[in-house]
Amino acid sequence: MAEILATQITWHEGTVTAAERGKLLGQTGCTLWLTGLSGSGKSTIAVALEQVLVAQGHAAYVMDGDNIRFGLNSAPKTLMEARGSSETSAKRFGLGFSAEDREENIRRIGEVSRLFADAGLIAVTSFISPYRKDRDAARKIHEQNKAGAIPFVEVYLSTPIEVCEQRDPKGLYKQARAALASGKGMGFTGVDDPYEAPLNPELTLDCSNKSVEDLVLEVVRYLEKRGFLTHG
Amino acid sequence: MAEILATQITWHEGTVTAAERGKLLGQTGCTLWLTGLSGSGKSTIAVALEQVLVAQGHAAYVMDGDNIRFGLNSAPKTLMEARGSSETSAKRFGLGFSAEDREENIRRIGEVSRLFADAGLIAVTSFISPYRKDRDAARKIHEQNKAGAIPFVEVYLSTPIEVCEQRDPKGLYKQARAALASGKGMGFTGVDDPYEAPLNPELTLDCSNKSVEDLVLEVVRYLEKRGFLTHG
Repeated sequence: MAEILATQITWHEGTVTAAERGKLLGQTGCTLWLTGLSGSGKSTIAVALEQVLVAQGHAAYVMDGDNIRFGLNSAPKTLMEARGSSETSAKRFGLGFSAEDREENIRRIGEVSRLFADAGLIAVTSFISPYRKDRDAARKIHEQNKAGAIPFVEVYLSTPIEVCEQRDPKGLYKQARAALASGKGMGFTGVDDPYEAPLNPELTLDCSNKSVEDLVLEVVRYLEKRGFLTHG
Repeated sequence: MAEILATQITWHEGTVTAAERGKLLGQTGCTLWLTGLSGSGKSTIAVALEQVLVAQGHAAYVMDGDNIRFGLNSAPKTLMEARGSSETSAKRFGLGFSAEDREENIRRIGEVSRLFADAGLIAVTSFISPYRKDRDAARKIHEQNKAGAIPFVEVYLSTPIEVCEQRDPKGLYKQARAALASGKGMGFTGVDDPYEAPLNPELTLDCSNKSVEDLVLEVVRYLEKRGFLTHG
């Protein structure tokens, strides 16, 4: 470890530029926005993609329910109990699954992925994000980034609902169908809440007939083709 | 640019580990939480520190009012106009400067800096963050990170208020004093809202009698001493 010496330091006006970050990390910061039904393969692809990129020397980071829904976008109860927020604050800022709460959930993820991409990372978001206008707003946040537009790559997991429902990895479709049959419903995407498929996604992946390896390589090829991976 | 080949890929269970990220980036992800009065030098130190770290091959990223207050933590009006949020959503989730809003502002920053540090970066936050309990909550978020505790370094900018007020780079003290004299007040930290100094900060920097270069090097020495910079 070489110690940093005062004489090695050169200062310039303003913050670190995107070009400097790109040179440091050997890549262009960008956001890969995975969208698709529950069970469509988003999480599997995201985790595998992150592994491949990191193994090849690229800084990538997955945002998903695990690190966002239990942190930044916690439910009111979690906010109060685990996060130490006051009751009024938790009630106001905590997120559930209403349309308004989903909008805010996706907006915050859009903002955070923009920050990661601005820092030069390959941000991978893995959320159903069912509404077109919310995904479009996330794209706009990237396009209007103050220091310059940031690439936003919408990756549509097009796995048909029949396949997703047959897999049902968390038993949620079964639960949603039962809730619907009982007349209550739970606003579950694809069952009793709409999924609005992307109109012009940069990439479409169908997890019903291709291996995870093949699909991950499709994404990597795309990043290479766009010139986002400059070493590794 | 070497193309990534399918045969180069090895898969393992679970997500990328902190050790893998540390090896990739040559550092230990951590959060440097700068706190201090307006005009205490937070932003100057943060920007200079980021430059020095990046120049030495370290991935660092500053979060400040510029990229957070106009993005993730926008005011209601900005949320609605620039971010495309609905009016009810903007009113509910937009942030002002009440104690409740400040708490949520700092909580979100605590969550996002944790994500950055979890991704292996040196996250530098630059906010007044006047309340002890809010900073302690941010620390707790790092300590309780699911994949293992993340180092949280509280950096107290102890520049005396007289010096800060004399500098008054944005004219805010003048404005706050005038508001107070007129009997209205604006809840400005150090004037008519308290600043609770850290009790046990990891680092204390006084910007009233040392150069920016010297103070930045103090922080870098600290990171070196903790073993957080493994190459560069």
